[in-house]
Amino acid sequence: MKIPTEGKLLRIFIGEADKWQGNPLYEEIVILAKKAGMAGATAIKGFQGFGCKSHMHTAKLLRLSEDLPVIIEIVDSEEKISKFLPQLEEMVKEGLITLEKAQVLMYRA
Amino acid sequence: MKIPTEGKLLRIFIGEADKWQGNPLYEEIVILAKKAGMAGATAIKGFQGFGCKSHMHTAKLLRLSEDLPVIIEIVDSEEKISKFLPQLEEMVKEGLITLEKAQVLMYRA
Amino acid sequence: MKIPTEGKLLRIFIGEADKWQGNPLYEEIVILAKKAGMAGATAIKGFQGFGCKSHMHTAKLLRLSEDLPVIIEIVDSEEKISKFLPQLEEMVKEGLITLEKAQVLMYRA
Repeated sequence: MKIPTEGKLLRIFIGEADKWQGNPLYEEIVILAKKAGMAGATAIKGFQGFGCKSHMHTAKLLRLSEDLPVIIEIVDSEEKISKFLPQLEEMVKEGLITLEKAQVLMYRA
Repeated sequence: MKIPTEGKLLRIFIGEADKWQGNPLYEEIVILAKKAGMAGATAIKGFQGFGCKSHMHTAKLLRLSEDLPVIIEIVDSEEKISKFLPQLEEMVKEGLITLEKAQVLMYRA
Repeated sequence: MKIPTEGKLLRIFIGEADKWQGNPLYEEIVILAKKAGMAGATAIKGFQGFGCKSHMHTAKLLRLSEDLPVIIEIVDSEEKISKFLPQLEEMVKEGLITLEKAQVLMYRA
């Protein structure tokens, strides 16, 4: 895949404490993305932020340290991401999902 | 907000040690974003990098460990982000601010 | 650089354990970006993910903790990033490289 290819960057903003069927939601999303054959998925933890639940999270406050913001990033074709969305929308009860254009310059396995 | 909506992703690249009125700048920006009614803000810490100050930061070197790169990400409408910018520009003495298009696929509170 | 300027955001998805000439690849990329005079580079560590190597990485499993996903972000003009790409493609044996549009709203040194 040497030639620039139009792809999409899907970003899912959730909380570290969010669950799906008893398991961490971020973990379930990464596993689902793998099953769906996505090129890759990366979960990143923020150390401070606020979101849909509208209370502030910070790594400084111990009692909230279990609900830091998490961003999951998935890069693939528009087609594959579109197919993935309905499952994702079912799992994410609170959160923000964005889609951006991203040229794929290189993908080497 | 099920239907894709044009939004913007604002990203602010600063240093962990940057201050605003004696407090950590990243913290002040997140608080300001909350006051401005932004949909969400997430502060992420990098473990290595360089920026405007043009010296290398790395978590490996203890003496610099207090000035690792920080990225703050804010997603909202173009209008709300535009209103937020003048305050932000006042606060960020050194750093990089970028704006990207981002479709908002889902925002659930 | 007060006026919005068209820039590019280059993102490199690699593994923490990837090497270039015996050194960590992420470190070598950040050093190279600095030598190339890029405006800035930030390396971020994910805590879970999968990529080209197609096995799951997670901070929970100690034995894999040395190969967590790493994202390096570089913002600059299209021209400077284009010049940087051939070197980068030589260094990244496995991974994903994406390019996005990013308006540079502010760059203050």
